[in-house]
Amino acid sequence: MGALHAGHGALIDQARAQSASVVLSIFVNPIQFNQGGDFERYPRPLAADLAFAEAHGVDAVFAPSVEEIYPQPQVTFVDVGRVAEHMEGQFRPGHFRGVATVVLKLFQIVQPDRAYFGEKDAQQLAVIRRMVSDLNVAVEIVAVPTVREPDGLALSSRNRHLSAEERAVAPRLYQALAAAARSIAAGETDPQAVKRAAHALLAEEPRMRVEYLEIADDPEMQPVARIAGPVRVAAAVWVGGTRLIDNLLCQATLHK
Amino acid sequence: MGALHAGHGALIDQARAQSASVVLSIFVNPIQFNQGGDFERYPRPLAADLAFAEAHGVDAVFAPSVEEIYPQPQVTFVDVGRVAEHMEGQFRPGHFRGVATVVLKLFQIVQPDRAYFGEKDAQQLAVIRRMVSDLNVAVEIVAVPTVREPDGLALSSRNRHLSAEERAVAPRLYQALAAAARSIAAGETDPQAVKRAAHALLAEEPRMRVEYLEIADDPEMQPVARIAGPVRVAAAVWVGGTRLIDNLLCQATLHK
Repeated sequence: MGALHAGHGALIDQARAQSASVVLSIFVNPIQFNQGGDFERYPRPLAADLAFAEAHGVDAVFAPSVEEIYPQPQVTFVDVGRVAEHMEGQFRPGHFRGVATVVLKLFQIVQPDRAYFGEKDAQQLAVIRRMVSDLNVAVEIVAVPTVREPDGLALSSRNRHLSAEERAVAPRLYQALAAAARSIAAGETDPQAVKRAAHALLAEEPRMRVEYLEIADDPEMQPVARIAGPVRVAAAVWVGGTRLIDNLLCQATLHK
Repeated sequence: MGALHAGHGALIDQARAQSASVVLSIFVNPIQFNQGGDFERYPRPLAADLAFAEAHGVDAVFAPSVEEIYPQPQVTFVDVGRVAEHMEGQFRPGHFRGVATVVLKLFQIVQPDRAYFGEKDAQQLAVIRRMVSDLNVAVEIVAVPTVREPDGLALSSRNRHLSAEERAVAPRLYQALAAAARSIAAGETDPQAVKRAAHALLAEEPRMRVEYLEIADDPEMQPVARIAGPVRVAAAVWVGGTRLIDNLLCQATLHK
């Protein structure tokens, strides 16, 4: 979606290292937005993005208009069922339908051998992996680790909407997830206990409002009743008018 | 879906005439069947189909097992919205979702330049055309006219289920559609009048039960309030335990 930052840079760099040709798509996709205004408000610094792409060795940028991608009313949609049901899917109805549909369209147009996605959007990654597998799309999905600020905040195009005070509060999201990861690594198997402790940490920041905090299996993204293997601890919070998401893959140390 | 007849032969022959390589898929797709037993009952004469394919110059037959196409529970589905809403879509809920999903999978696996579909399944053709267009699939859809018996009955793998008496009754479906086409060619613009006359013809056969008889625009497949251009007159009837469908593209002669 553009508004490129070092997180996207990591995707491009890994693609560049593994591929003869690298194509970058930049498209702010209207059918995956929910709350009014978020689509319009999403940053679109195309000139800076093109310079960023060139500096990272991208061969081609595909930056179509909305009219090119949706020349007629879109009546065909890709639904990914239960993988899209919880967490982001619960709070952003239709979001993953819009994501899966546009990503399939981009795959059909660009026909890449590999496509690179960030782990920051872990459920999106799971949705795309499942769509590709279920629909036999001839593309390999490569997951790239989340890039973080030194204080732990995951890079996001939405971070630029944070005021200085909000920015100071934002790393609390990562801190709560990291605490959950430590608790799971130490052997806690009750997701409710892990979630209670993480919620308590988040509640210490009155500027932060939790939308969800969930512990789900990966790749099915279903909330677990007991932690008995690798799980994805994922959360969405609001800081002022900005929505932030983050997640960590967690596992008991003994189970390694 | 196999059980090949001269209708499929026309598809293959046209593909053969236009292409360097012809791949034929044979797959009875469980997720597009509704009434219990129809999937199991669908004919699967693979040895005869392979001989038929060879005689028509097919280069490769792709006849996967259900487990190859659905190795895991299918959670991703392609929905084609309003094109799939009426006629077949109304009486076979989920049918076109199953068709669109498996056809997209086959396209991704085989990656054909062109794909050939029969006009007998006109709404299926419209669904696939719209899916391909909406999802930017790089395949050209070619429509091939319906092949009929001398008495007008459209060829169908299901015709073999008809008893001799039912077979004698079956051409009445085509006769009713042909009467509708003549009435529209003569200038009738009221779909209700056309449908009443066609229903009266069908009602003369007590062995034939009408499921629907509709007049829709093509390619959107929406019932029309007035006939003012080319329309698709389509019907589904039951003859005993066998369901038959057929359709004709109709237009006022003056509008040609």
